[in-house]
Amino acid sequence: MKAEIIAVGTELLLGNIVNTNAQYLSEELAMLGYDMYYQTVVGDNFERLKQQILQAVNRSDAVIITGGLGPTPDDLSKEAAAAALELELFCDEASLKSIEEYYSKSHRTMPESNKKQAMFPKEHCTIFKNSNGTAPGCAMESKNGSVVILVPGVPYEMKAMFHDSVKPYLAAKSNKIIVSKSILVAGIGESLLAEKISDYINSADPTVSPYCKPAMVNLRVTSKADTVRQAELKVDKTVSRLCTILGKNVCGININTIEEAVVMLLKKHGLKLGTAESCTAGIVSSRITAVPGASSVFDLGASTYSNDMKVKLLNVNSETLKLFGAVSAQTACEMARGVRVYSGADLGLSVTGVAGPGQSENKPAGLVYIALCDSIHYWVVKLTVGNAQNDREKVRNISATTALDLIRRYLEYYPLTMPEFTDINNPTCMDINKTAFNEANFQL
Amino acid sequence: MKAEIIAVGTELLLGNIVNTNAQYLSEELAMLGYDMYYQTVVGDNFERLKQQILQAVNRSDAVIITGGLGPTPDDLSKEAAAAALELELFCDEASLKSIEEYYSKSHRTMPESNKKQAMFPKEHCTIFKNSNGTAPGCAMESKNGSVVILVPGVPYEMKAMFHDSVKPYLAAKSNKIIVSKSILVAGIGESLLAEKISDYINSADPTVSPYCKPAMVNLRVTSKADTVRQAELKVDKTVSRLCTILGKNVCGININTIEEAVVMLLKKHGLKLGTAESCTAGIVSSRITAVPGASSVFDLGASTYSNDMKVKLLNVNSETLKLFGAVSAQTACEMARGVRVYSGADLGLSVTGVAGPGQSENKPAGLVYIALCDSIHYWVVKLTVGNAQNDREKVRNISATTALDLIRRYLEYYPLTMPEFTDINNPTCMDINKTAFNEANFQL
Repeated sequence: MKAEIIAVGTELLLGNIVNTNAQYLSEELAMLGYDMYYQTVVGDNFERLKQQILQAVNRSDAVIITGGLGPTPDDLSKEAAAAALELELFCDEASLKSIEEYYSKSHRTMPESNKKQAMFPKEHCTIFKNSNGTAPGCAMESKNGSVVILVPGVPYEMKAMFHDSVKPYLAAKSNKIIVSKSILVAGIGESLLAEKISDYINSADPTVSPYCKPAMVNLRVTSKADTVRQAELKVDKTVSRLCTILGKNVCGININTIEEAVVMLLKKHGLKLGTAESCTAGIVSSRITAVPGASSVFDLGASTYSNDMKVKLLNVNSETLKLFGAVSAQTACEMARGVRVYSGADLGLSVTGVAGPGQSENKPAGLVYIALCDSIHYWVVKLTVGNAQNDREKVRNISATTALDLIRRYLEYYPLTMPEFTDINNPTCMDINKTAFNEANFQL
Repeated sequence: MKAEIIAVGTELLLGNIVNTNAQYLSEELAMLGYDMYYQTVVGDNFERLKQQILQAVNRSDAVIITGGLGPTPDDLSKEAAAAALELELFCDEASLKSIEEYYSKSHRTMPESNKKQAMFPKEHCTIFKNSNGTAPGCAMESKNGSVVILVPGVPYEMKAMFHDSVKPYLAAKSNKIIVSKSILVAGIGESLLAEKISDYINSADPTVSPYCKPAMVNLRVTSKADTVRQAELKVDKTVSRLCTILGKNVCGININTIEEAVVMLLKKHGLKLGTAESCTAGIVSSRITAVPGASSVFDLGASTYSNDMKVKLLNVNSETLKLFGAVSAQTACEMARGVRVYSGADLGLSVTGVAGPGQSENKPAGLVYIALCDSIHYWVVKLTVGNAQNDREKVRNISATTALDLIRRYLEYYPLTMPEFTDINNPTCMDINKTAFNEANFQL
């Protein structure tokens, strides 16, 4: 089964917005077992749109059109699709009623222009309700057996409709059940990862697709079978084998971020974390608190950007700053200790580094120290981000991800397979060199 | 002149990555004066790629292909383009030498497979150097006068090559000079903005295109003329008129973020800012410190997530917390005061709110208080983010942007056109209701 996506909108063609809908739909369709050969973006132009739909219908089994379902004369997707499939549009009373209700809920009257959103073919058409907006979607069936599916362009309307209506519609067309799980992986570069699991990436069932994220990879394992149980069995077997191969680099199953794993593990162990950030200045704390329920494990994040604040709030020794500088293993340790003690947390995590573009001879942009401490031990990562001078955000984001991964490994696999020490004046670092995102080949 | 973009890569078709290259190229080509009618994504398949290029060459003057220039047998863009244009590929010695040099710089030997990256047509072809990778790009001229431009798929390689080589190449083909400036706008919804400046958005020269960002809009003003001076005059005239219409909603010219404006204004006035964040817990501090040079205006950001830390570090009165709760105008004021005093900053900025999904009857998700103080006065925004219960990130990001916009308006337009007060026990709030990003119609 082949599928393709047509995203409609001049704002996409002009580059005003990024086509994130295409990514979402591609991933979902791939999971439903469709082969994807084309994605197209067309503007709000009836003739070009109709031609594109005709081309797509002739080469694909399912054509998903996103956008162009609004009430303005510019919105032409449904009209173009109906014309391409030689179907006529009529007013669907049920749809009209629900659009009117959408307006009356917020005490407004439906403008006349919205009526066109209720127009659908009387036959060969399944209408999909829009619970988050006025534009219903639909599936129109073509004479050659392929199907044209229209969904809104607004991402949250589109996603909800795809999940609630389109997925079941397409699943019903197939007689197979699809089950999918994801494995979040960190601390291993994309190429090394692909090498390690190449047998699985090339396997046909279950399929294993790597989805790259900044400094992480999400592996999606998908299988098709006659029953949920059969599909699950296959998926679980592969997930378990991949987890064995990837070991400590696995952050979790069916989670999206390392911070989710960190918050979950802190809760599980009943521990609290405090963070002290210099160069990242709040990235770590904002990521941890992005997880609902973080308040039970996190009380304080201190973004101490100046030396004075490191001394005053974190009790960093001014001698340490003078002798080793703010960007040093010693300062990192004292920052971690400081925030742990001040906030009464069980664990302290700190980040201090040179984000760039400014740098000095012995402290180049991209040099970052990350320290973790409990009430007795310290661990320090000396991170070197390559080609860093003109990419402040890269340095900051890799640093934050590495810090979160350090605490995750501590919480899940204590003791850590890296030097630990108790004498803060005599730190031993674990060196990590990264040239780019997804090139993080290290074992903490 | 018509242009279109073909992005090549199975990882795009499967939704593994978002097609940000298409957005970048669309925006750049629109600025160069090209009309954009199509964007396509094709996989790494010779025949489909060749057919797509043929279709594109027949309908567009410039076809930009991104991706598929790597050394593996999968990388087929150049081969497909040459086949489509009936051009033969030969080894270009200069390109081969520079690829070999790229390897020898990092003390490696060039693998045999990289040789194919040095293959180009001998005629009708301009080669573009790649300063950030091994794959050179090129422009191949077709018999019908249109041009096929090949650039790498890796975003930073592609962007550098487009900027350094492709832009001058395309500009030389045109005899017009193009000048462009952008206006960053915050605090006004997209639709109201479009209404206010509709005459300009519909004008042909200069063109005015709105690029939406979370809670902000970037207006790009572009003009073409025979000389830089002529084009600049037209652009500047429109920019100045738009700035008059949009007034205090203008954050700056040719900047990307509100925080850039904030850091610049703090520097200009010689003022320091301290931040105290509860629900955003570091988003504001990490955004401010994303601006190079922020260290001269920012010493401390306190992410006080618990009540205890608000009391201990920010000296918030525990009576205040008991009486009004952590999410209240009173607590916001005391947090702002607390961080200002503790860090010795001139200004204090605080955010406290219910990010959701958890909420209580009188403190719904989406209710956020933002306070700003100098040594005498306080200002409080009571922000209500609509439909917030399931969108923690939306609440946090709108809150952070609103906080940054509040301090920007203070720094640029003091006195603020909103209630100011000196008695912290008797706060007066400015109410702002937002239902979604880009629906922020308010005047602070």
